[in-house]
Amino acid sequence: MTVIAKETLIGKRVPKLDAPPKVSGEARYLQDIELPGMLFGKILRTDRVHARILNIDVSAAKALPGVHAVITAADTPNVPLGIGRDNPPLKGDKVRCIRDEIAAVAAETEEIAEEALRLIKIEYEDLPAVFDPAESLKEGAPVIHDKHPDNIPFTFEYSHGDISEGEKESDVILEEKVKLHYVTHCCMGVSGIIANFDSEGNLVVYSQTQIPFMYKKDISPVIGVPPEKIHVIQPVIGGAFGSKLDIYPFEPICIFLARVSRRPVKMVFTREEELVASPTRQPVELTIRGGAKKDGTLTFREVHTVHDNGGYTSWGATTPFVIMQTVSSLYRVPHCLYKTTVVYTNNPYSGSFRGYGNLQATYAVETHMDKLAEALGIDPLEFRLRNAQEEGETTPQGMRFHTCGFRDCLTTAAEKSGFREKHPAYKSGQEGPVKRGVGIASLLHVGGGAKIYRTDGCGTMLKVDDFGKVTVMTGSTDIGQGSETVIAQFVAEELGLPIGSISVINNDSEITPWDVGVHASRTTFIAGKSAQLAARKARMKLLKVASEKFDLAPGQLDLRGGQVVRAEDGEALMDLGKLIRSLHFSTKNDIVMTSEYYEPPSMMQDKEFKGDVSATYAFGTQVVELEVDTETGVVRILRVTAAHDVGRVINQMGIEGQVEGGIVMGIGYATTENLVVENGKVMNPSFRDYKLITAPEVPEIDMTFIETMDKEGPAGAKGIGEAPAICISAAIANALYNATGVRFYELPLTPEKVLRRLREAGGNGA
Amino acid sequence: MTVIAKETLIGKRVPKLDAPPKVSGEARYLQDIELPGMLFGKILRTDRVHARILNIDVSAAKALPGVHAVITAADTPNVPLGIGRDNPPLKGDKVRCIRDEIAAVAAETEEIAEEALRLIKIEYEDLPAVFDPAESLKEGAPVIHDKHPDNIPFTFEYSHGDISEGEKESDVILEEKVKLHYVTHCCMGVSGIIANFDSEGNLVVYSQTQIPFMYKKDISPVIGVPPEKIHVIQPVIGGAFGSKLDIYPFEPICIFLARVSRRPVKMVFTREEELVASPTRQPVELTIRGGAKKDGTLTFREVHTVHDNGGYTSWGATTPFVIMQTVSSLYRVPHCLYKTTVVYTNNPYSGSFRGYGNLQATYAVETHMDKLAEALGIDPLEFRLRNAQEEGETTPQGMRFHTCGFRDCLTTAAEKSGFREKHPAYKSGQEGPVKRGVGIASLLHVGGGAKIYRTDGCGTMLKVDDFGKVTVMTGSTDIGQGSETVIAQFVAEELGLPIGSISVINNDSEITPWDVGVHASRTTFIAGKSAQLAARKARMKLLKVASEKFDLAPGQLDLRGGQVVRAEDGEALMDLGKLIRSLHFSTKNDIVMTSEYYEPPSMMQDKEFKGDVSATYAFGTQVVELEVDTETGVVRILRVTAAHDVGRVINQMGIEGQVEGGIVMGIGYATTENLVVENGKVMNPSFRDYKLITAPEVPEIDMTFIETMDKEGPAGAKGIGEAPAICISAAIANALYNATGVRFYELPLTPEKVLRRLREAGGNGA
Repeated sequence: MTVIAKETLIGKRVPKLDAPPKVSGEARYLQDIELPGMLFGKILRTDRVHARILNIDVSAAKALPGVHAVITAADTPNVPLGIGRDNPPLKGDKVRCIRDEIAAVAAETEEIAEEALRLIKIEYEDLPAVFDPAESLKEGAPVIHDKHPDNIPFTFEYSHGDISEGEKESDVILEEKVKLHYVTHCCMGVSGIIANFDSEGNLVVYSQTQIPFMYKKDISPVIGVPPEKIHVIQPVIGGAFGSKLDIYPFEPICIFLARVSRRPVKMVFTREEELVASPTRQPVELTIRGGAKKDGTLTFREVHTVHDNGGYTSWGATTPFVIMQTVSSLYRVPHCLYKTTVVYTNNPYSGSFRGYGNLQATYAVETHMDKLAEALGIDPLEFRLRNAQEEGETTPQGMRFHTCGFRDCLTTAAEKSGFREKHPAYKSGQEGPVKRGVGIASLLHVGGGAKIYRTDGCGTMLKVDDFGKVTVMTGSTDIGQGSETVIAQFVAEELGLPIGSISVINNDSEITPWDVGVHASRTTFIAGKSAQLAARKARMKLLKVASEKFDLAPGQLDLRGGQVVRAEDGEALMDLGKLIRSLHFSTKNDIVMTSEYYEPPSMMQDKEFKGDVSATYAFGTQVVELEVDTETGVVRILRVTAAHDVGRVINQMGIEGQVEGGIVMGIGYATTENLVVENGKVMNPSFRDYKLITAPEVPEIDMTFIETMDKEGPAGAKGIGEAPAICISAAIANALYNATGVRFYELPLTPEKVLRRLREAGGNGA
Repeated sequence: MTVIAKETLIGKRVPKLDAPPKVSGEARYLQDIELPGMLFGKILRTDRVHARILNIDVSAAKALPGVHAVITAADTPNVPLGIGRDNPPLKGDKVRCIRDEIAAVAAETEEIAEEALRLIKIEYEDLPAVFDPAESLKEGAPVIHDKHPDNIPFTFEYSHGDISEGEKESDVILEEKVKLHYVTHCCMGVSGIIANFDSEGNLVVYSQTQIPFMYKKDISPVIGVPPEKIHVIQPVIGGAFGSKLDIYPFEPICIFLARVSRRPVKMVFTREEELVASPTRQPVELTIRGGAKKDGTLTFREVHTVHDNGGYTSWGATTPFVIMQTVSSLYRVPHCLYKTTVVYTNNPYSGSFRGYGNLQATYAVETHMDKLAEALGIDPLEFRLRNAQEEGETTPQGMRFHTCGFRDCLTTAAEKSGFREKHPAYKSGQEGPVKRGVGIASLLHVGGGAKIYRTDGCGTMLKVDDFGKVTVMTGSTDIGQGSETVIAQFVAEELGLPIGSISVINNDSEITPWDVGVHASRTTFIAGKSAQLAARKARMKLLKVASEKFDLAPGQLDLRGGQVVRAEDGEALMDLGKLIRSLHFSTKNDIVMTSEYYEPPSMMQDKEFKGDVSATYAFGTQVVELEVDTETGVVRILRVTAAHDVGRVINQMGIEGQVEGGIVMGIGYATTENLVVENGKVMNPSFRDYKLITAPEVPEIDMTFIETMDKEGPAGAKGIGEAPAICISAAIANALYNATGVRFYELPLTPEKVLRRLREAGGNGA
């Protein structure tokens, strides 16, 4: 008798399924794809920030041998795109910011295309420009879009309770202004696209999009191709982090080039182009005001921002949706007001970026919390614990915390970092110019999707072959986050198979069923659950077949190690492939195919932005220990102690990677990364001048996963993709204060900025 | 009110969906596929027909720059392949026929690979060879395979009734011998393969196979890769006609080269190689003996053949399965005996080829029928009608004719061709050297698959997107026969959509569910039915959604022209895409995904080869009118009048193409095509010497489709892929007799053969 013990893949260290092809060079990125007869597309961008276009002369470019197409706005339907529908792919009337697209060329080589761009002559009439949203709001400010003479495309306002009540209850009220900067995604794989029309007018797009199904719908009116005639193939994507959540002008432009040239056209950004012309993280100036009682109970929180929208409206403009969640619901906040005015300027515009406003919100809220604690004379950990929510609570905005590991995160991160001891010790003053500090900060983020459309679901189709090999077709996209592996784990778990028996197909809109797309840390939760349920249907079918064969109830059987086993004692009864073949090659003549569309039990927010928008919520606390050289301003992060409520770990290796990656990205945001925009122009479009965190700067990272076993999540999981990047900058600022007694209201904390602030603040840095 | 009338695509002229990409050059054949780092493989074949291999020296080939791998049998597992498992991919001990593979090379270019082949030195010891199966059966004949010292790998015997009874009942008994020749498929796309192992040891094969799922299973033991690690991608296939139903040595050889070189390897035959080393139609010598009563009732039929198996056993060896069906069941045959001894020789071996033995069997049976009719003094049409089965009959072999258009085929073809008048007129003698003749012949073939495995089913998975675009994933393969289009028609029909709304995915074993493969004219019937049922499930789901929305019973609704309509008056109620979106983006939150595994109600034959092996049967009659110049032997086919019981026409344009193509292929078989094999060697491996029918030689073709509306077939259809090629050669021979009074017992009817036979027969040609 062969006995197979019950084993689980859940929580194990499972190497990413896409790792071997990536390491071996087999993975085919967009850059690697060549289609017969393919041309290369290039875009001519403006060097002005606000100007009327008087004339575009493309005659010399068109005459260049090897050029197959030269297009300007005059050659296109000129339907504006993007989340704000205010961004025509090619600009014909005027340019509004530095990245604006004027003309495009398709040629036989990249070099010819570049040469052709140099031959295009543009005449402009410069217009007065505005780079500060406050200036933009003033009477008589230059108008960016005629449709919005006040430069305000939209506003947000959220409230619960009554601020004046909160003020009355408060023993302490503090207010400060926080100014957060431009950064950009810096995906290792630069942006690109290949577009190809077939002889029937169907469009195949090789796209890096995170949202293949919304993409079809969204790009359709811009390019004049019905969505059902658009086929999206996603090559291996070299990072996205939210940058591929919207459609940007280069995409329809490349499609226009393909249409005009009647050839496949590939367009791939240079790194400089990537830094100038891809979306940024929304820069925000927040004014935060809040109060608390002597006993440490928060009373109210009020946040006002003027949101610099740049020249056009992409997802960055809608980050207030997430900012307000943290403002309203990170800790119990009885009274809350949040207002944002979104204002056009001639600056670059912003897209969605891991955390989606929450890095900015959390920086403000968690540095403010630190100040409140100090003002109250309460230990910052204690203050947070006093206000942290617990399981079962519903926040005034409507988020229901069915599970909540918030307090566990706080205490675990504090304990493992020695926060309680170190914080007062460092605060009491240190000798010498190099000071140590610890800082703590927490986060709240959606963990079960975010129902911003009427469905937040994901479809799965699944088939099992005669040998127990499973193909899972999922609508969800893997942008490097490891969802392919997690989905395979859920399926393997249900069917008692090794992970290698599962193939995940996730990159072809013709084949895979619908999914909203990769955003809101939703893929493990929603696509994982969809796959799990589809696999469970297959499991039930197989157990039923085995049940008849072995005269045992399905419940008395299990699938383990590629075998059907007796559940009671694990006795192997039959190889799974053999069982499947006995179904297939018998009078039953059936095979195993299942499908599932999983919709999470969340709801869209009402007009007041209230509602349980996610099926679950993620929490986390990070403690940073650092050294700052007060003579040079150099900050050295020594250690990050992270505790995250992840529901349940599905892939230990994957989640460690997510948390490490998020922390490093957050440290970059906090300390080194800065897309310098002066008078609307990007001043540092290269990795020499735009400083990413590199391996030697990565601190020791200690992480603990708080497993709250979410009731809805697949195997108990919550989403974790964005969370680790969110609160680290606040923890760093709080640690810097702990070390130096100086508060920092601006990022990034470069040596120059730190030193200037230390000198400016002198002894009284708060 | 917009009214949409009920329209159907069934029976319409629907251009093949794969036509535009093929015409425009978009279609990617194997030849067009290039993988990064790909090498080119070439095979060294023997020039001996039977020899012991003493030594193979590959040292010079290995040393040639640009060569990455040189392999011989010593480098491979040497597991024999093919349907007989007697054919090692590379031959190490001895060669048994002219095409035998000795060594293979993978190199950076085809030229280098060819040069390397020339550097390989082989020492042989020639062995006595045998080319005539009768010789092969003699005591002391050379033994081809040690495992079969009698040279007999297997035998077939089928009988029903009692021949001696039949003899007793007979007023006339005739016997003759028919000798049929080698032809080969002449696919416009020559054979080829690309093999590539990924870094995890998974094998991707770009294969032209007709049977992707059986392929995985069959090739697995030969190459030592488990079937679940084999991924079969089928590029556009440039014709197959059965030639890609087995696995041939080049396939594992290319896979071995990929394994050894650790690179993708592509192997594409030259046309000469294709003619020498791809499968043939089984040459057969049949002795047919049969009797009838004076009243024209058949009494018995007895057929004996010695089957020349060539050096190895591929599908050609199993054509007796089909031969015996025609022997036993083409017309009512009360007593029947069929015996075949399959014998190894040193000739080339045979694969499966459209008709699968039935061209040979029908030639024998239908020329014999003509002789019997004459001997009885009965008109050949009347004689056939007297013995043709009718609906509801079950043949003694067990075939149940639920529908049967046999008599309609006979009378229709006769009427439309003027057979009744012309046959006696021509027979009565004509002036001058050029004589006219008409001949008639009929056929019986499976029309609803052939259950030679325990399942003859096909899987379908289907999804409908938000805009009413449907993707159908079918296990079935389109080898050019038009199944993609027919499947799309069935789905479009169920869902009331235009054909352009349907995408068919049918070429990737990772994605598509299981199917037996393309053989036995089964795809329209079985894959079509599977797709129809999957689509019907989607239809039911959509009607249910509409039912709730419009407060009408599903039966009161219909889907037409991309709309949900009221069935009664056709009033358009809602666009289908809108209905789907109302399901998807509502509290229902669901999408449309369905699946179906359709198994036809057929059964495997028992040990006596009896049983209802197909879900339905196809019948057909073809009348040929021709001219023969008795001074030159040149035969000119003037007109073919075909009537086929096709159940129901699904695609009028497609079925016309199938019938025309089959008739032309049958005419080639009958009159021009001849793979000349002398002493085991192919003497005419080029299209200069191997004569295909070309456009100017195609006669006028008149075709009628007898629509018997099969009760099981999708929309009433039967399979028709093979049928049109089957009886034309008998009709030609019968017409020649009608013209000249001379019987022809050998094919092809080239001028040389016709003239020789006319002279040899003199006045007494029967």
